Amino acid sequence: MNKVNTIAIVGGTHGNELTGVYLARKFKNNQDLITRPSFSSQVLFGNPKAIQECRRYIDKDLNRCFSPADLQNATLTSYEDARAKEIQQILLSPEGLPIDIIIDLHSTTSNMGLSILLGSEHSVLLRLSAYLSSISDEVKVCCSPKSQNGVYLDSLSDFGFAIEVGAVPQGVLNAELFHKTEKLVLVALDYFEAYNQGKLPEIPSSITIYQYIGAIDYPRNARGEIEAMIHPQRQFKDYQPLNPGDPIFLTFAGQEILYEGTSTVYPIFINEAAYYEKGIAMCLTQKKTINLSTT
Amino acid sequence: MNKVNTIAIVGGTHGNELTGVYLARKFKNNQDLITRPSFSSQVLFGNPKAIQECRRYIDKDLNRCFSPADLQNATLTSYEDARAKEIQQILLSPEGLPIDIIIDLHSTTSNMGLSILLGSEHSVLLRLSAYLSSISDEVKVCCSPKSQNGVYLDSLSDFGFAIEVGAVPQGVLNAELFHKTEKLVLVALDYFEAYNQGKLPEIPSSITIYQYIGAIDYPRNARGEIEAMIHPQRQFKDYQPLNPGDPIFLTFAGQEILYEGTSTVYPIFINEAAYYEKGIAMCLTQKKTINLSTT
Repeated sequence: MNKVNTIAIVGGTHGNELTGVYLARKFKNNQDLITRPSFSSQVLFGNPKAIQECRRYIDKDLNRCFSPADLQNATLTSYEDARAKEIQQILLSPEGLPIDIIIDLHSTTSNMGLSILLGSEHSVLLRLSAYLSSISDEVKVCCSPKSQNGVYLDSLSDFGFAIEVGAVPQGVLNAELFHKTEKLVLVALDYFEAYNQGKLPEIPSSITIYQYIGAIDYPRNARGEIEAMIHPQRQFKDYQPLNPGDPIFLTFAGQEILYEGTSTVYPIFINEAAYYEKGIAMCLTQKKTINLSTT
Repeated sequence: MNKVNTIAIVGGTHGNELTGVYLARKFKNNQDLITRPSFSSQVLFGNPKAIQECRRYIDKDLNRCFSPADLQNATLTSYEDARAKEIQQILLSPEGLPIDIIIDLHSTTSNMGLSILLGSEHSVLLRLSAYLSSISDEVKVCCSPKSQNGVYLDSLSDFGFAIEVGAVPQGVLNAELFHKTEKLVLVALDYFEAYNQGKLPEIPSSITIYQYIGAIDYPRNARGEIEAMIHPQRQFKDYQPLNPGDPIFLTFAGQEILYEGTSTVYPIFINEAAYYEKGIAMCLTQKKTINLSTT
């Protein structure tokens, strides 16, 4: 990417994640905040009907509707499938090309701090993330394989990423997290402006990323009902090492269930409300350091 | 009340308050836990359709549908209005009288600890509450006037009360809070058993209660959109004194808004997700000590 020409900031892809909804409103009403000399910025509300009803979605999760196959499938007609096709059209650059950068704003009931969820390990994104990590200890960087993230809204751009902040309940605004998220977005915009000007700030020589390797479901009975909760010692411990034998769940009867993996992993999205129905109690990652001088 | 003959434990009056939903399931599947020699116990799922969809309600808030006028109003036919009338029928004692005790299990995104919400200051309830407070520092006791609580499910019984636990997001189970809530319910059942046996345990000589005196909405613009969030210094500070001049909200632009009341109050339900749509940023209470030797 020689130059960033167009950036979209998306809020309310999930209608009950209010940090993104209200940040998008603020940016929409204060366009000067997101205006930079060298690129154009636009604000988009992902799922207006879900925002109206303060629900994650109406018919299905919008942020799983963006695979190229689904976008071309005319038989998919749910509210979110139709909205995904609309969004694809909206997020074309003035030349009809995919927009350069998409920043999709999410929140989570997991203790994810200020997480950046990358769609690829492209050096542009890694360097941006390293810079943002150097601004705040709360910034963490995750990456998932294309097979996992190719259905997300931000995959409409090769350089799309999500900002996932928490812990905050669905339907709730946390002022501190709101202002930290705003700052993170604005610093990212400043970074892209500097990128265009060829005046990039100094960045750390390496970056730690958490690479998605899988997910664990809650223990369930034959009827699919969950039989255990996240263990109190694991609750809110996103990004902290989980070792073989560590307590991971606690049954309703009070019995501990231990992690049976064979190596240390780093769970994220621990006890995310929206993932109960997806069969995910937490996602597992591997911690990895990337030397940026070689990227 | 000479003797407690019948107790109902209700979970899922709000379908996305999982502590109550899963505790009710546990009690339903382990009836021995709630069985006591001198009274009969039953478990009821308040709003089955909302539980199924993990939403607070389908058409309207079930826990505002229990005024005597609404229960007799045949023109109210929403899912929740119909369900309220069904529940009224279900919660009749074998003699066709209202059930003696209703314990309605709720959770909240506010930092309410283990709160007991009384429908009246009857000495039976105050003494039970004093006993429960003596078991754990996290137990707090609130009371609201009949004009306020006469629409709640637990108002179907003269000795109904709610247990409201938090902070926990909607759609999330917190193992620690689950087991603490369970213990509180079981200790309450033990207390009623002792009451029936005439062998009441020692209780403190006085009780602190937080009496509802009103609510404050978020600052809103002409279109009704909120313009400020709970101030970070007030977030999670339920039951702590709010003095005139204390910061209470923070606008999206970062401006502080101070509390303009004339005396110290004790806010509860600070930043409850379900109350954004009700126009409630927090409820205000007065702190009061009641001498139990005179009740």
